[in-house]
Amino acid sequence: MFDCIIIGTGPAGISAALTLKARGRNFLLIGSASLSGKINAAEEVNNYPGLPAVGGAQLKEAFINHLEQSDISVTPGQVTGVYDMGGYFGVLCGDNSYESKTVILATGVEAVKPVPGESEFLGRGVSYCATCDGLLYKGKKIVVVCTSAAMEEEAEYLSSLAAEVVFVPLYKGARLKGENVRYLVDMPRAIVGDTRVRKVVFSKGEEECDGVFMLKSALAPSALVAGLNAEGGHVVVDRACRTNIAGLFAAGDCTGRPYQYAKAVGEGNVAAHSVCDYLAAKK
Amino acid sequence: MFDCIIIGTGPAGISAALTLKARGRNFLLIGSASLSGKINAAEEVNNYPGLPAVGGAQLKEAFINHLEQSDISVTPGQVTGVYDMGGYFGVLCGDNSYESKTVILATGVEAVKPVPGESEFLGRGVSYCATCDGLLYKGKKIVVVCTSAAMEEEAEYLSSLAAEVVFVPLYKGARLKGENVRYLVDMPRAIVGDTRVRKVVFSKGEEECDGVFMLKSALAPSALVAGLNAEGGHVVVDRACRTNIAGLFAAGDCTGRPYQYAKAVGEGNVAAHSVCDYLAAKK
Repeated sequence: MFDCIIIGTGPAGISAALTLKARGRNFLLIGSASLSGKINAAEEVNNYPGLPAVGGAQLKEAFINHLEQSDISVTPGQVTGVYDMGGYFGVLCGDNSYESKTVILATGVEAVKPVPGESEFLGRGVSYCATCDGLLYKGKKIVVVCTSAAMEEEAEYLSSLAAEVVFVPLYKGARLKGENVRYLVDMPRAIVGDTRVRKVVFSKGEEECDGVFMLKSALAPSALVAGLNAEGGHVVVDRACRTNIAGLFAAGDCTGRPYQYAKAVGEGNVAAHSVCDYLAAKK
Repeated sequence: MFDCIIIGTGPAGISAALTLKARGRNFLLIGSASLSGKINAAEEVNNYPGLPAVGGAQLKEAFINHLEQSDISVTPGQVTGVYDMGGYFGVLCGDNSYESKTVILATGVEAVKPVPGESEFLGRGVSYCATCDGLLYKGKKIVVVCTSAAMEEEAEYLSSLAAEVVFVPLYKGARLKGENVRYLVDMPRAIVGDTRVRKVVFSKGEEECDGVFMLKSALAPSALVAGLNAEGGHVVVDRACRTNIAGLFAAGDCTGRPYQYAKAVGEGNVAAHSVCDYLAAKK
């Protein structure tokens, strides 16, 4: 049983991890080992105090270096569900499941809005997780919408299973290859079906399919945790970064604007302190 | 008329300044040119992301360097009053007064609690500002309570005016000298008087006097701004760092725990964004 599981390796997750480490807590930091794709993408950041005119790649290097020096390792993976077990949480991540007394959501915000039908057909043809649901589509036809290069590995795994993959990259420089892979450069507009998904509607046409994988680097927090209070796509938190669920905290872009390194780092710190306060009060 | 006046040069004030600069705003950053004394005092900070195992002096240097590179200069001085003029603010700082559409309080927290009687006799024998009130005590006997070496210059100025100075340093290594200066190493317990201050009570005795100067590097925000909503010595703010007074924001230690660099930097960023939102909405 962990004291805390931090979901997300952007500035908020890293900040929370450094503070929990300083406080001697037993925690997991789950996310991309190459940290947040968005950090890397930043051209120049001028308002992160102490690191003037720093490029995204430099900032990422500074963060990775800091984690290494602090002896914190990232558990690579994508969390697909957080379950409130009454007093502790179950956290699903690929084939693994973990138990933790508290959870900090630091999942960022997904630049891509959900497609109409996406939430409706979740679990009935729509999936966020290649590892979890890939085998269900062995020999079938699937549409794979991929929002970042970091998720291509999952798409590749899917292409090794499915008979036919319609691959929809929402970024430049996609590299996925395969005889059964057909590229479609278009925006998905709706997911349509009856008891299950039947097709995906695009701006210029549609594709019938057995299933749709939406491979996103950040999941909507409300899709991760049942009963979580959210507003306009953001987790509702108080000034101590507490959500409406006891023991569940949130920090960084997922709690709302401004989408800024400094703000995310600050909230990660606050959330980690709130975790410590929560654990101390439960004793 | 400034867009914003930031009061305080700790991590919160610096973070706010960097963001207002990035947003092209016209602002003043008022505080100690040598930045926060507390930054310097930190032995080692391990949880400010991007700068691993950094000492206070290094962090201060990084902040000063960042301000310089961003072409931001500190206006040295101590603000002694913020006045809501209905639509804009008047800010008193030594002999100067400034006007600004908004104000960010980033005044930190004073480690020293107010002494009983301190607020009661403010303006009736108790003063926070040597420059403002020193002349009133020419040729008189005063008690000067000084919480940090950074404030000694003000004490020196007072000793050039008063006939007799009882100097009470609440730190080690005080250097103030003068024939009319008598050191008293004790904690002030109460300020007592009738229509005006008459004496200061210490743990081991008392001193009659005409006035008391409380030279603190951080003033209680509620002493700075009339009508400001505070609780337990902290300014009450919402998640956007807004106080109960329109156009007045607060960030950093003065808004409450955790007293951490990362948290302060995050709130400075948020407050600066809220200033921009406020100015945009007023247009």
